[in-house]
Amino acid sequence: MITDQYSARAKKVQRSELAALFKLTENPELISFSGGFPDPDWYLDEVKAVTEKIINERKGIALSYGPTPGVTDLREYLAERLGRQGIKTRGADILITSGSLQGLDIVCRMFLDPGDRVIVEAPTYLGAISTLENFEAELVQVPIDDQGMRTELLAETLESMKKEGRMPKLIYTIPNFQNPSGCTMSLARRHYLIKIAAQYGVLVVEDNAYGELRFTGEQLPLLKALDEDGMVIHLGTFSKVFSPGLRLGWFAASSVLVEKAILFKQGCDQCSNTLGQLIALEYGRQGLIDKQIEVSTKALIVKKEATLAALEKYFPAGSTWTLPEGGFYTWATVAGHTDTVKALNIAVEKYKVAYVAGPSFYTDHVSGANKLRLCFSQPKVDQIAVGIKRLAQVLQE
Amino acid sequence: MITDQYSARAKKVQRSELAALFKLTENPELISFSGGFPDPDWYLDEVKAVTEKIINERKGIALSYGPTPGVTDLREYLAERLGRQGIKTRGADILITSGSLQGLDIVCRMFLDPGDRVIVEAPTYLGAISTLENFEAELVQVPIDDQGMRTELLAETLESMKKEGRMPKLIYTIPNFQNPSGCTMSLARRHYLIKIAAQYGVLVVEDNAYGELRFTGEQLPLLKALDEDGMVIHLGTFSKVFSPGLRLGWFAASSVLVEKAILFKQGCDQCSNTLGQLIALEYGRQGLIDKQIEVSTKALIVKKEATLAALEKYFPAGSTWTLPEGGFYTWATVAGHTDTVKALNIAVEKYKVAYVAGPSFYTDHVSGANKLRLCFSQPKVDQIAVGIKRLAQVLQE
Repeated sequence: MITDQYSARAKKVQRSELAALFKLTENPELISFSGGFPDPDWYLDEVKAVTEKIINERKGIALSYGPTPGVTDLREYLAERLGRQGIKTRGADILITSGSLQGLDIVCRMFLDPGDRVIVEAPTYLGAISTLENFEAELVQVPIDDQGMRTELLAETLESMKKEGRMPKLIYTIPNFQNPSGCTMSLARRHYLIKIAAQYGVLVVEDNAYGELRFTGEQLPLLKALDEDGMVIHLGTFSKVFSPGLRLGWFAASSVLVEKAILFKQGCDQCSNTLGQLIALEYGRQGLIDKQIEVSTKALIVKKEATLAALEKYFPAGSTWTLPEGGFYTWATVAGHTDTVKALNIAVEKYKVAYVAGPSFYTDHVSGANKLRLCFSQPKVDQIAVGIKRLAQVLQE
Repeated sequence: MITDQYSARAKKVQRSELAALFKLTENPELISFSGGFPDPDWYLDEVKAVTEKIINERKGIALSYGPTPGVTDLREYLAERLGRQGIKTRGADILITSGSLQGLDIVCRMFLDPGDRVIVEAPTYLGAISTLENFEAELVQVPIDDQGMRTELLAETLESMKKEGRMPKLIYTIPNFQNPSGCTMSLARRHYLIKIAAQYGVLVVEDNAYGELRFTGEQLPLLKALDEDGMVIHLGTFSKVFSPGLRLGWFAASSVLVEKAILFKQGCDQCSNTLGQLIALEYGRQGLIDKQIEVSTKALIVKKEATLAALEKYFPAGSTWTLPEGGFYTWATVAGHTDTVKALNIAVEKYKVAYVAGPSFYTDHVSGANKLRLCFSQPKVDQIAVGIKRLAQVLQE
């Protein structure tokens, strides 16, 4: 059998939580709180004119290969955009990636040998878990609470790893409106994280997919904005603030790291799609990304409120959930003995409602059986209460 | 230094031939025979209407995530298209990739552990060399001649590897209008390759980027069309027959391999860009890919003739070059003691003409110093003689 010849990593990789999720979304009857997808209603109508402009005026460029690091003007635009968020960078220090997950994939290529340790949050983004697992990393989870990663536990972990003589290569964190918890890292913890990362010499990978979608409270500084020692790689994406279908993100770091990243980008896919890059650039320059962020944030606030109200009304007494200040997610802990993995099949098949079960966000794929992630971005507002009610019925069953 | 923490692969990866090439193309004065880029003149004007149709009628889908394996209708379309080329397959056995190089990257993820052997042609596609090197493969080159890979030498190599007890995991080949040689594998060798691959149990990766761009002679069966034992992974791309800027290719293989490939695709970039997939599907369905192939092939024949005539006229006596039956390339061997690597700098800086030096296509990065690849797809017809004349001057210098 040819499959006997699989690599060690291929023998280990057995499932794709995300691919399964993506498949679920094909049933139109389903009320889905599963995938972290923007509501297509948020794409502004102006995108039509932008696309037509690009294809009519720049067809030759849009359909041809672009430079491996990305379209130069888009990199400059992002440098300016990140500058407004407090990150001092230059276009030359930004690599355009095919979504932020490719950014993480490139980080893995750069730093991970099999068995290398990586610290991630507990719970954390399931796509990141699967990408890191593909590189045969040993994942160590540090718990979060409503102030984000518990950095005092991180410090203890680093200290004990140091004593053991096996330091981690990376600390992967989603400081803003974390996936799946919805929690945001406090300012004090941000400073402390940056301090101990520099102290122990461990690189921080900041995934900021949701940071610009804040409902309430003050914007906190990005980790990369606090980074004076080049210890942070900042990953971003157009997927939540504009369009996931264009598959565009970015990797911003110190020059030496970006240069190496470009070498690996070439081997991944040569360059990201040029048409999409030109559309994103034009959409951004016309102020439409900012406008879409406004539209999305308003809509997300309404959906979040509807979700929290329905949870209050229908969920089993004693259940708890997080109160996100932005982003797409709330993270619920169900009272009683619940197995959210088993319940998911019943939910989807019988009740036509979907979510993501807690264990998907833990590296042991077992913890968090009484937890679940609810993504409120995708369902229509008037479906939310119906969906949560159905879900409560599943949990009672 | 954080760079001390690089992975073993990152410490080895020092350059990107392709990225350097892509950069060269930015000087408009340059006559470039370097990158294997389609001429933007070939993109049919109809692409504007196609793009407008997609963004106007299907904005919500085009800008959203698609299924990880690719847009279902596009996979079906490709199954039908490959069927016309003699490959019996189904949409379900095709994975859409972000260019064919990502297809190879996924093959590597599936099969390669560090130190695993891979057989490639000598010379072979430099992008494939760099992707394979990223996986720390041990590359073994088997020479080609004007009938393609010398399969009798392949058989010897396999036999001696078998005796050694270290079989290769993959045989990577470009049977049609090979990159960089322009040569095409004969029918007899195709049959023999498939036979010995099955006999020794080694997977064949067929890269067919150029196969539909035939100038003369009969279409030969694809390796995948001859494959009865599921020993061939067929990689294709829209980059040479439609648009490289959309970054779309495909991976067609037996179901079990495609299922595993989808798991890795998810970790690469979740899915390929949806807007591009819908444009390619519509462009294909309207018969425009076939029309563009006709346009490109006609143009390529004229450019090829101009290139060969100019080589005859200007190149040093005793030099030789291949006579491609299709595709983008001819491969020249320069008479006398020439170092095409050293000459390249002079060519680009002083004479404003570019090519790719022979050693880029050898895994030792040293062989082939008297050889060079000329890609005739990109320069305008009236620039070809000028460019080759300049190049001949460089070689005399």
